[in-house]
Amino acid sequence: MINFTPGPSQLYFTVENHVRQAFRDGVPSLSHRSKEFEKISKTTTDGLKELLGIPSDFHIFFVGSATEIWERVIQNLVEAQSLHFVNGAFSKRFHEIAGQLGKKNLKIEASLGDGFTDFKVGPTELIALTHNETSTGVMLTMDFINQFRDQHPEALIVVDAVSSLPYPQFDFTKIDSLFFSVQKGFGLPAGLGIWVVNDRCLAKAESLLSKGISIGTYHNLPTLLANAKKNQTPETPNVLSIYLLGKVVEDFLRRGIQLIRKETEYKAALLYQTLTQHKLADPFVNDAKLRSQTVIVAQTGMHTEAITKHLQSHGFYPGYGYGDKKKEQLRFANFPTHSKETFEHLVDLLEKFS
Amino acid sequence: MINFTPGPSQLYFTVENHVRQAFRDGVPSLSHRSKEFEKISKTTTDGLKELLGIPSDFHIFFVGSATEIWERVIQNLVEAQSLHFVNGAFSKRFHEIAGQLGKKNLKIEASLGDGFTDFKVGPTELIALTHNETSTGVMLTMDFINQFRDQHPEALIVVDAVSSLPYPQFDFTKIDSLFFSVQKGFGLPAGLGIWVVNDRCLAKAESLLSKGISIGTYHNLPTLLANAKKNQTPETPNVLSIYLLGKVVEDFLRRGIQLIRKETEYKAALLYQTLTQHKLADPFVNDAKLRSQTVIVAQTGMHTEAITKHLQSHGFYPGYGYGDKKKEQLRFANFPTHSKETFEHLVDLLEKFS
Repeated sequence: MINFTPGPSQLYFTVENHVRQAFRDGVPSLSHRSKEFEKISKTTTDGLKELLGIPSDFHIFFVGSATEIWERVIQNLVEAQSLHFVNGAFSKRFHEIAGQLGKKNLKIEASLGDGFTDFKVGPTELIALTHNETSTGVMLTMDFINQFRDQHPEALIVVDAVSSLPYPQFDFTKIDSLFFSVQKGFGLPAGLGIWVVNDRCLAKAESLLSKGISIGTYHNLPTLLANAKKNQTPETPNVLSIYLLGKVVEDFLRRGIQLIRKETEYKAALLYQTLTQHKLADPFVNDAKLRSQTVIVAQTGMHTEAITKHLQSHGFYPGYGYGDKKKEQLRFANFPTHSKETFEHLVDLLEKFS
Repeated sequence: MINFTPGPSQLYFTVENHVRQAFRDGVPSLSHRSKEFEKISKTTTDGLKELLGIPSDFHIFFVGSATEIWERVIQNLVEAQSLHFVNGAFSKRFHEIAGQLGKKNLKIEASLGDGFTDFKVGPTELIALTHNETSTGVMLTMDFINQFRDQHPEALIVVDAVSSLPYPQFDFTKIDSLFFSVQKGFGLPAGLGIWVVNDRCLAKAESLLSKGISIGTYHNLPTLLANAKKNQTPETPNVLSIYLLGKVVEDFLRRGIQLIRKETEYKAALLYQTLTQHKLADPFVNDAKLRSQTVIVAQTGMHTEAITKHLQSHGFYPGYGYGDKKKEQLRFANFPTHSKETFEHLVDLLEKFS
């Protein structure tokens, strides 16, 4: 059985072996104040920096989930007002969280499946971008993301890359913070969020604190940094997950990030081509430049159930469409755990069903 | 090798098998919106209610850590002022978090290793009690905890039971909230906090919200409840850990909670007796009524290193004393994973070293 749901995803194929090794080495009962944990934490952090090209002046923090990071971003980085680009359920939730925390949360919206056009952005403290909208399969282009730095040198630019990493190569001179969780592209069991920030973010949190604004407690940026400098965490973290992430990152590095990127694009091209030519399905996202490379959404309309059953009968489990699209769309995760052969088999099955 | 550190603890001996089964059953990639997850979540919740005698009008929520719960308790349950009983590093941290969140955080302090005496409590919104101070091995008596309900019917009574559960039997008519994490008495890998609350807590959070006070976002009580009613969680949680907790709770139920309690008391009595009679060590807590049954702290002074080496040479790893007591105390976790035979062997080794 192969699982194409966009998260939690099919596990990366090495994970079960790494879990076995972790138990043999006593990782699950390591103290988070021990040298052994510090070594694991450093291995994972260093590996991520190498894999994703994260510059040395960025910090990597381990927290509970990407959902937590939405909250921590607003708490630590926004005094009064944030601006959100909203084009689906997840970017919408990020926007809502800012409102729940009492901030003025501006938004620029695009229709589902579309990109952002004709937008004007006034001065803002923070620009929130969702690189890959998991609900619709729209992926922002790097040109789009990278334009904001020059236009808004005052703003912190924060990118939700939950369902796209490790695929995208970000230009870290154009953004201030990036975050993701481990149960998507990294193919790990859920329960860990990764928050990457630069010193501008730290300075902002310190400045809010000095104004007497609450930035939270154990997971505010200064506390996270003070612990991360020792390769520790403020609380007892998901030690096993931090270990497993380090191991999978090592696997990715061994395979080579360029190869992973090329294969991702090859598999995406294969599936989009098949959908484009298919009689019963279409790519949901019309503009080819905006089509996600990692979460491919098919408009399958009245054929959704039949296609699903056909694929499932061969052990291939697509993800349902998100929310009210459940009965008319299918979503296919295209993560490093999904091999080229798997995708070739998938398109073969789709082509035969028409 | 047997690990006596009070957390993360030696794993419960069934955990590795449960992990294997989880991978066979695809648990780590289950969607948290699936029927399969809902079933797991309900099994764990129902099991905990049975094991700990939690009444049906209490709710059980899954969050990231007990440290997170300190923060969520203050956010959701305190408008202006909380009162903390502080007698060690962990109760102190709970008290500090209330201050960091801008609340007036009163405290009543006891010396390390002592109980609370001659205290007066004025009106307060919330009374925070740490049932078992992991840093010193002081365990509050049930009589102590249960006195506050009548004295302060207006206050919410919140108990941190991180390093004592599943041993203690709380009277849920005397408290409003209880919390713990899974890497201590439940013998699981870290990465999950369990928060138990009654409807008074829910009502308080709703009342703060209606006054325009921020109670957080995805992990505020109303959002946790709305999801828990569907046996779901607001965010993608640590699904594997929720599954493993349910399995270990089943193991505990099969063994019988009364037997687990009796064995805990037997093992504690054995070790305290040995320490009392020992030439090179003493129980750190003088008052026998306050001695923790689950984290036993030995005052070992200048013999600390020698005793540690002796025990380690037999594969028995005690925990160091907490903080600045590292070189003069040893801590011994007494959790369900530590068998009677293990404790008999431990005291034998201690008795031979004198």
